Amino acid sequence: MDQRLSLVTLGVTDLDRSHQFYTALGWRGTEVQETVFFQAGPIALVLWDRGALADDAGVDDDGAAFGGIVLAHNVHTRAEVDTIIDQARAAGAVITREPAETFYGGYAACLADPDGHVWEVAHNPGFTLAPDGSLVLPDWDAQG
Amino acid sequence: MDQRLSLVTLGVTDLDRSHQFYTALGWRGTEVQETVFFQAGPIALVLWDRGALADDAGVDDDGAAFGGIVLAHNVHTRAEVDTIIDQARAAGAVITREPAETFYGGYAACLADPDGHVWEVAHNPGFTLAPDGSLVLPDWDAQG
Repeated sequence: MDQRLSLVTLGVTDLDRSHQFYTALGWRGTEVQETVFFQAGPIALVLWDRGALADDAGVDDDGAAFGGIVLAHNVHTRAEVDTIIDQARAAGAVITREPAETFYGGYAACLADPDGHVWEVAHNPGFTLAPDGSLVLPDWDAQG
Repeated sequence: MDQRLSLVTLGVTDLDRSHQFYTALGWRGTEVQETVFFQAGPIALVLWDRGALADDAGVDDDGAAFGGIVLAHNVHTRAEVDTIIDQARAAGAVITREPAETFYGGYAACLADPDGHVWEVAHNPGFTLAPDGSLVLPDWDAQG
């Protein structure tokens, strides 16, 4: 199994509401057969009916908001964290953690989308954010 | 907010067990301060204590396995789906959906990792899988 992620699908209860939410954050997707696809650099983020997603995956869905997954969107500056959180709040997101210094020397906040999917918006000076948007981890081995 | 995903963090209850699981699937990560980081192309996949992750995100954790998110790993051939599912089964994954034709004309299966995080392993002839591993969505608008 190659070390690669191709798509992240977020199960939603109201596709239009979720599509509008991500559009308000500045994303542009395409709706095809009651599914919304966003090209997010080299992967795709997908919005699909949560019940259909659970059925399709062969798992039970008890409706929990948090299943132990957090998505992160890293930015180049602390100011961008504040701006995106303001934008998300205006779009109806619940800010589950207000912008603040982090234990790793960065600055971050967390927001929950209309279905409770959590995004961390972070400025982490320890990770390289390449011009093309790639996140490049440090070479810890080389650092000893 | 740029249309970009930087990291996906999977909350785990036993870091060593999860690290071993992904290692058995062929991934190579680095453990730093009780966190395992995998460079997955242009993003990072991270394993971290689930309780710490929930606290950090400012959300309650009722311990649910499914929170409405499915990760997908797309491959070039149907045979690769079978191979990865065999490999995952041997590594202790629960196969939540056995390999089969899909409604979209592809071939896919789903596996749950030791904490129940679901991965779809899919061959989808409608999506382009570039040589560098990028997933490129169709240009539906151009198709009319």
